[in-house]
Amino acid sequence: MVSPMLSMNQATIKHADLRQTLDTLTQTGYHSVGLWREPVEAIGVPEAVRMVSDSGLCVSSMCRGGFFTMPEGPERRAAIDDNRRLIEETSAFGCTVLVLVVGGLPQGSKDLAEARSRVAEALAELEADALAAGVTLAIEPLHPMYCTDRACVSTLDEALDIAAPFNPKAVGVVVDTFHVFWDPNVLRSIARAGREGRIAAYQVCDYRTPLEADPLLSRHYPGEGVIDFKALTQAVAATGWHGDIECEIFNRAVWDTPFDEVSRHVADAFDKYVAPYWPAE
Amino acid sequence: MVSPMLSMNQATIKHADLRQTLDTLTQTGYHSVGLWREPVEAIGVPEAVRMVSDSGLCVSSMCRGGFFTMPEGPERRAAIDDNRRLIEETSAFGCTVLVLVVGGLPQGSKDLAEARSRVAEALAELEADALAAGVTLAIEPLHPMYCTDRACVSTLDEALDIAAPFNPKAVGVVVDTFHVFWDPNVLRSIARAGREGRIAAYQVCDYRTPLEADPLLSRHYPGEGVIDFKALTQAVAATGWHGDIECEIFNRAVWDTPFDEVSRHVADAFDKYVAPYWPAE
Repeated sequence: MVSPMLSMNQATIKHADLRQTLDTLTQTGYHSVGLWREPVEAIGVPEAVRMVSDSGLCVSSMCRGGFFTMPEGPERRAAIDDNRRLIEETSAFGCTVLVLVVGGLPQGSKDLAEARSRVAEALAELEADALAAGVTLAIEPLHPMYCTDRACVSTLDEALDIAAPFNPKAVGVVVDTFHVFWDPNVLRSIARAGREGRIAAYQVCDYRTPLEADPLLSRHYPGEGVIDFKALTQAVAATGWHGDIECEIFNRAVWDTPFDEVSRHVADAFDKYVAPYWPAE
Repeated sequence: MVSPMLSMNQATIKHADLRQTLDTLTQTGYHSVGLWREPVEAIGVPEAVRMVSDSGLCVSSMCRGGFFTMPEGPERRAAIDDNRRLIEETSAFGCTVLVLVVGGLPQGSKDLAEARSRVAEALAELEADALAAGVTLAIEPLHPMYCTDRACVSTLDEALDIAAPFNPKAVGVVVDTFHVFWDPNVLRSIARAGREGRIAAYQVCDYRTPLEADPLLSRHYPGEGVIDFKALTQAVAATGWHGDIECEIFNRAVWDTPFDEVSRHVADAFDKYVAPYWPAE
């Protein structure tokens, strides 16, 4: 029995193609899946939409747009256009959340403030497309160790400040436990995100040290690290937000485990470490 | 010619003993050194004090106290006593700054808020000793990637909040570029630290990705990464703080380089990337 509010992000079984992902999740009893564009585009969006529709799974989020911190020019235009395509792609699955990893410092730059202002400029260009498609662009603050090469937005407060000028239907934030648990303001920031109607996704996975040699792959099953899922989950629940909670793990050992085993492990870890702090439906 | 406000932290030439460190720095033309307790205690404090005094070098800081986030019990008592000894040791060198790496989560704990409150409790116990010795306990916020295993204090603002109840002569903060550059509030926090009279040390080194396999050893010479030393240095200078600026690098390649070469490289990098933004004496 898989918790009805649990979704598994496809990257947790990275080596599965879309067919294998859908089969694994439906066989384990999931109701929802978080998709990545690469396996979707590998078979083509229309076919992927049919497969997901046939599976009966909801799509909790599409990963990932963003990477638009470069200066004006052809590369930036391509990035904005790519995000427009992704908004359409997200909408094609009946999904309302496009996760944004906003990008780090452009080559040769040391100016984080400028990179951050380019995020705001990109959102201004994309807001109308997002509203028209019924898709929320969800800024994901990433752990500060990824600040310069992946996402110059590091805290929930900063993501909320950037989102503030935009319609909350068009621009929201992702609360990912791995990325924000260390922040001394995290509980206040989650409450603020709730008040401002900005929570678009809640993602769970654990953190522990030593970090893996590739720090991107340091995400673990809930309960296998040091994150206090009770405090964070209760804080999200207290905002009144309800949506599918995604478990998203990047970890070589998890990727090397049989898909069905991973999907059951995720469901069990979620039941033990997250679900007890989420109000019953 | 070494900038008169530049100090080199001894850990930058980790494999040098105290004698070699002092000789290297005086021969290169430094006026100041940041000491670590291990090489000092390896030869005994009285002898180390004589050697430093004979060298003519000032001691810009002593590294490092702290590691007092564990619950009450014999281990905590030992940590507090150890910090009292370090205050005396710091004072013996005529040095006024004891750098604190406060400690992460105690074994088995997931409660960062509790760990942070234990930092405040430890400072309350040590404040009188610090005042009596004329030593400032300098809380060093560490990059959030070290939050759970080394320092649960991750931002300057958080360090300032913890310091607030204490006499600024007894409790201050360290501004280390590597640890704080990513923080969207860093310039405001530096200004606040200045207003509140809390800046006890300014340490410089650079950050770049990919991180080293051991993220502790990912510190680089100024100019070899992505940190904007102009903005940070001008912000520190604008507070009116003046003290010796320490360059502290943990990096295996730097440690494997001849000591005199490192000390000249540090002085050159400082001249190029930091000194231009510091007011002339």
